[in-house]
Amino acid sequence: MRALVVNEFGSPEVLCLRDFPDPTPGEQDLLIEVHASALNPIDFKIRRGALAKNRSFPFVLGFDVSGIVRAVGKEVAGFSPGDAVYASPSLVRNGANAEFVCVDARTAAPKPRSLDHLYAASLPLVTLTAWEAIYDRVDLDGTETVLVQGGGGGVGHVAIQLARLRGCRVLATASRNESMQLCLEMGADVVINYREEDVIHRINQETNGYGCEVVFDCVGGDVFDWSPTCVRANGHMISIAGGGANMSKACNKLFVRNATLHFEMMGVPTMYGVNPEKQGEILRQVAVQVDLGHLRVHVSRVFDLEQLQEAHSLQEQGHVVGKLALRVLN
Amino acid sequence: MRALVVNEFGSPEVLCLRDFPDPTPGEQDLLIEVHASALNPIDFKIRRGALAKNRSFPFVLGFDVSGIVRAVGKEVAGFSPGDAVYASPSLVRNGANAEFVCVDARTAAPKPRSLDHLYAASLPLVTLTAWEAIYDRVDLDGTETVLVQGGGGGVGHVAIQLARLRGCRVLATASRNESMQLCLEMGADVVINYREEDVIHRINQETNGYGCEVVFDCVGGDVFDWSPTCVRANGHMISIAGGGANMSKACNKLFVRNATLHFEMMGVPTMYGVNPEKQGEILRQVAVQVDLGHLRVHVSRVFDLEQLQEAHSLQEQGHVVGKLALRVLN
Repeated sequence: MRALVVNEFGSPEVLCLRDFPDPTPGEQDLLIEVHASALNPIDFKIRRGALAKNRSFPFVLGFDVSGIVRAVGKEVAGFSPGDAVYASPSLVRNGANAEFVCVDARTAAPKPRSLDHLYAASLPLVTLTAWEAIYDRVDLDGTETVLVQGGGGGVGHVAIQLARLRGCRVLATASRNESMQLCLEMGADVVINYREEDVIHRINQETNGYGCEVVFDCVGGDVFDWSPTCVRANGHMISIAGGGANMSKACNKLFVRNATLHFEMMGVPTMYGVNPEKQGEILRQVAVQVDLGHLRVHVSRVFDLEQLQEAHSLQEQGHVVGKLALRVLN
Repeated sequence: MRALVVNEFGSPEVLCLRDFPDPTPGEQDLLIEVHASALNPIDFKIRRGALAKNRSFPFVLGFDVSGIVRAVGKEVAGFSPGDAVYASPSLVRNGANAEFVCVDARTAAPKPRSLDHLYAASLPLVTLTAWEAIYDRVDLDGTETVLVQGGGGGVGHVAIQLARLRGCRVLATASRNESMQLCLEMGADVVINYREEDVIHRINQETNGYGCEVVFDCVGGDVFDWSPTCVRANGHMISIAGGGANMSKACNKLFVRNATLHFEMMGVPTMYGVNPEKQGEILRQVAVQVDLGHLRVHVSRVFDLEQLQEAHSLQEQGHVVGKLALRVLN
């Protein structure tokens, strides 16, 4: 099959189109003919050398897929060849930047009927992340104010919608016009331009000085470090991107707020084989909400497989609005 | 009234027995005649200068009380003069190292009938802490392995019992013979002497390499920093004492485990007026469990009010086994 492989860790130039052996499905696997994939920051992080343990060259990135089942392992129940499915392939196996990928069937679901493969492939990783972060970690009852830091990004724009679907008030931060506009379209009640406004001051105003019950940081670094100031006593902070130079101080701010810090890394449960069915169940629920028109994904640009280097460069610059999708089969 | 007051921040010598104005109950308050109080690390931390904001000298420490209601504020329901009650007074008001203390009635409960005031006064702060940490933060179903770091301390020995009452397997760390013995008496399945054994190695053995679903760190500092290594993927770590020099690294270990870090500081909800009823409800449940003989508190030493300096010194040295109680009224 054709695959975009990584031959060594490094810049986007290490990505290389070549022939690669077709993957063989294990007993729990679906062999999926990849129609589309999508990009996530984890792609360039692994390309640069993250999660390097037990990985051997060449390998294939791409942790979103939508396509057609072509074969199933003998332990697989509920899927047959010909089914249209979507999933987030395991971070420690070969991904979907190729014509075929193997995915643990328990983590997959029938793709939303209302979407084509490009849009369906843009959902799994970011939606699983936002769902696990917001719905599985916090018991929302709709009375909460949720702050989404980086509301215009892949995870952020889905998180805004999920919080709104639970009835929460949503504040979002963004800076570029297009990102701010997307936050509003996704249902944010307030969008704060973090380049032009003192976010902490504004959050204080918006919450009568109490802070937010939930702060979901999709940006990381410095933003992680000051986010605890926006967390209400007994509140929750969720991080998908880690902290900066002042992480310890940040933690102490959470401590004096009696608060909880959730680290969300959606690839971990499947990596350790912890309850893989859970992600399949979430993607089924996501498909229901998408087909009902309650949830949508914003694709800001589509690349062909041959353009993956360019797509990586763009993702790496940050400030991607919504998702970058990857067309694999025309 | 007689009170042990703090006249300035500093060593135990700043504690001074003197006459102090009787407190006046607010609308939501109980005025309690203090029969007993107890010590907690927060006493010496405040005496040294913690939580100094809005505090003026002289003030009174003591954040556990058992005694008799002598007056009630006009908004108080459910309590009358003459009731025997126990509670954890607010960290930002005057405490119970005095003949009288005012406590928000919503945070108080009838004292366990089976205990005298000295034992009843040894329960509130540590039991509220352990209960909020273990029961309110984690949804235990009894399949979990819970590691209690510092199982022989005030919070630790209650935490072991609470985890056992939910059916969990409990591993505890301690070092001194008396502490290790107490962990066993409280129901720990395994007690690890952290001075003589490689705890991480032992936890790996005890959990088939998976780590624990819940790690409750009652020690802090270095112990906080290496505790994430004992947390299973998707697991929980709970801290009541903060981290050490490598808190950032510790957080990153939790991140790659998709784990949650709960900071538990039981004084915060009442400090901010967040759901004060909750602590009264917990103390009612605690009294039920105590009177049924399911839960107990270990008092290793009793001091008189006049001996508070000595009690502070002992608490400050660490390694207190169970609780130090304070007799106020004979």
